[in-house]
Amino acid sequence: MREIELNSREELILEKLLELKKRSGSHSPSVNSLLEKIPEIKFKVDACFLSNPYATQLFLDYFEKEVLKGNKIREMLEYYPSQNNVIAEKLASFIGVDVENVFIGNGAIEIIQAIIHNFTKSKIIINIPTFSSYYEFVKPEVEVVYNKLLKKNDFNLDVESYIELIKKEKPDTIVLINPNNPNGGYLKGEQMFKIMKAARDVENVIVDESFIHFAYENSNYDFVSVTEFISNFPNLIIIKSMSKDFGIAGIRAGYAVMSKERSKLLLENGYLWNSNGLAEYFFKLYTQAKFAYNYQKVRIKYIIETNEFIKQIKQIKEIKVYPTMANFLLIELPEKVDLDRFTLMLLIRYGIYVRNANDKIGLEGNFIRVASRSYEENKYMIKVFKKIFN
Amino acid sequence: MREIELNSREELILEKLLELKKRSGSHSPSVNSLLEKIPEIKFKVDACFLSNPYATQLFLDYFEKEVLKGNKIREMLEYYPSQNNVIAEKLASFIGVDVENVFIGNGAIEIIQAIIHNFTKSKIIINIPTFSSYYEFVKPEVEVVYNKLLKKNDFNLDVESYIELIKKEKPDTIVLINPNNPNGGYLKGEQMFKIMKAARDVENVIVDESFIHFAYENSNYDFVSVTEFISNFPNLIIIKSMSKDFGIAGIRAGYAVMSKERSKLLLENGYLWNSNGLAEYFFKLYTQAKFAYNYQKVRIKYIIETNEFIKQIKQIKEIKVYPTMANFLLIELPEKVDLDRFTLMLLIRYGIYVRNANDKIGLEGNFIRVASRSYEENKYMIKVFKKIFN
Repeated sequence: MREIELNSREELILEKLLELKKRSGSHSPSVNSLLEKIPEIKFKVDACFLSNPYATQLFLDYFEKEVLKGNKIREMLEYYPSQNNVIAEKLASFIGVDVENVFIGNGAIEIIQAIIHNFTKSKIIINIPTFSSYYEFVKPEVEVVYNKLLKKNDFNLDVESYIELIKKEKPDTIVLINPNNPNGGYLKGEQMFKIMKAARDVENVIVDESFIHFAYENSNYDFVSVTEFISNFPNLIIIKSMSKDFGIAGIRAGYAVMSKERSKLLLENGYLWNSNGLAEYFFKLYTQAKFAYNYQKVRIKYIIETNEFIKQIKQIKEIKVYPTMANFLLIELPEKVDLDRFTLMLLIRYGIYVRNANDKIGLEGNFIRVASRSYEENKYMIKVFKKIFN
Repeated sequence: MREIELNSREELILEKLLELKKRSGSHSPSVNSLLEKIPEIKFKVDACFLSNPYATQLFLDYFEKEVLKGNKIREMLEYYPSQNNVIAEKLASFIGVDVENVFIGNGAIEIIQAIIHNFTKSKIIINIPTFSSYYEFVKPEVEVVYNKLLKKNDFNLDVESYIELIKKEKPDTIVLINPNNPNGGYLKGEQMFKIMKAARDVENVIVDESFIHFAYENSNYDFVSVTEFISNFPNLIIIKSMSKDFGIAGIRAGYAVMSKERSKLLLENGYLWNSNGLAEYFFKLYTQAKFAYNYQKVRIKYIIETNEFIKQIKQIKEIKVYPTMANFLLIELPEKVDLDRFTLMLLIRYGIYVRNANDKIGLEGNFIRVASRSYEENKYMIKVFKKIFN
């Protein structure tokens, strides 16, 4: 590939973009913010957004039919949604745990905040690179031990040395995102089990399964969740965003599975009406057998297409694609590439919005994260990437 | 009025209702929960729900036209909403403060929790009866001083003795709900100002103005908010639910105005994506001049009708109506009335759902809280009440 040169108009937009990014802290600015502040951008593919577009469409089809055509939108907007435990009730039987084990969140991020603020008292081990909120929410008095995932291991966690680190550091909290964000690194069910057994003395074992629906361990594409172990491992706290599987980030729906004592403590301190009417509708739908059946179909379709996307992108010799079990790829670009200019060029010339990963702690180098989107969008991205790096 | 006798079918429903209420904690079960669990109930008027139905209709008209017909619903549900400070920006200029003074909440209740958990360290004075979350969220190590509002004063706050109490107790937090819930007692702007001056040494002066849009101090129905004093009184924290003015409780929209330091501290610890796509739309709409103009019209219409409702109910000699500047009435029933049976009778025979206030701390006796609703609904309630208490 040639070096990237921007024209003066593009340089101006770059300035605006960097300013906006600065204001967004450690998360990418949303498409809405971008469109509002930089109307020059013509979006084609939002490959920053980590979701299954087919599941979004499935949800929207139901929403259109049941809520809009069924004239249910008024009551959904007007009345107080049900309280946390009422929504938890349906979900609990669907995922096979007791209602007291379930905590409904206003998006997974609220749950991360609640857990880190309420249960982490002294020391936390966080694997990096990772989703930044886990270390951002840590209170000042808590010691953070960063466990750096190594590039030479493709950013995969080394289970043995991780267990050694736990024994040595004696943290009260560890965090495992499975598959991990931003690289998609995956720990199999048996590896998770090994860690959980070794971490019996750790008070809080947080397992963030927000991307678990994109992983699988057999030819039926079944995924393995540690949710079922909650009664054997009372220190487990499973966090699940619904925005990844369904692309409904505007609704803010997430949940956690945790010991009854923890969930009780949180609910006694607030979080009473933290869901909105649409999130309540989503969870109702999610736990219906017919919907679950239809969702499983679009889930598998998306995984198969994502695998094809990965395969195609891997053919480009000039870039390195890291192993992933999630719906995104961590890509390392050649050293000579200026990341800010490259991502802007993708956006302004091709309408492709990818995550510039240069602010991720523990990820030194030229990395971008690219989400798998619809078949057509993936095809377009493959074409553009092959053209750029021909 | 005669004593209330329920038939066996009604007694059975009463049992179900009491069970449901027990599970809802210190808040009434929602209409949705009620309808789901007790399908025997035929709702006519939800007089538990403290909102201006005309404002709900106004919002829904815009929503229908702009969002549904404008095909904006997908992006609202799919994408991440803007972050806290982006939404705060528009609101700040609308209410005349700096953006750094504004904190957007997932409903006022999230803000109450955030403030009480983060800023109240040692001692809080809470006037009772009041909205229960204020004392429910207090951490165990904080001392709560309950200032009982006296029945002989019609549950109005005595400003002089309140100031004396502050000087004596030296709390780090005081809470004023203006108008107060559940009685509607109102402190004029000058009384608020007097308290604020006397409470200069109190670290956190929480003023909950969730019902302030229903109050007024002149013939133009202008209301007086203490928001404008934020730069003079850095200890002020103003909390505002939008569910009362607009009846959009399903959306979860609220905000607070506070010192820049406080808001910064909260935002550094989370609350990044605590709004949903619909709440973001609401705030955008709320701050548009044309919408504000239309809202003002339905606000005044509702106040005038509420005043008429109060006047009519006050004519019933057998009950006592307490003075109110909010959109609800605190009503004391004759001693012989069994409250649980009375409210159930209203619900099952007349479809009127009122707030049984027997669980309110500081409110001993036979109290119900009745919301003013639409003109037709108020007319119906007046008829029913006059019939019952002929």
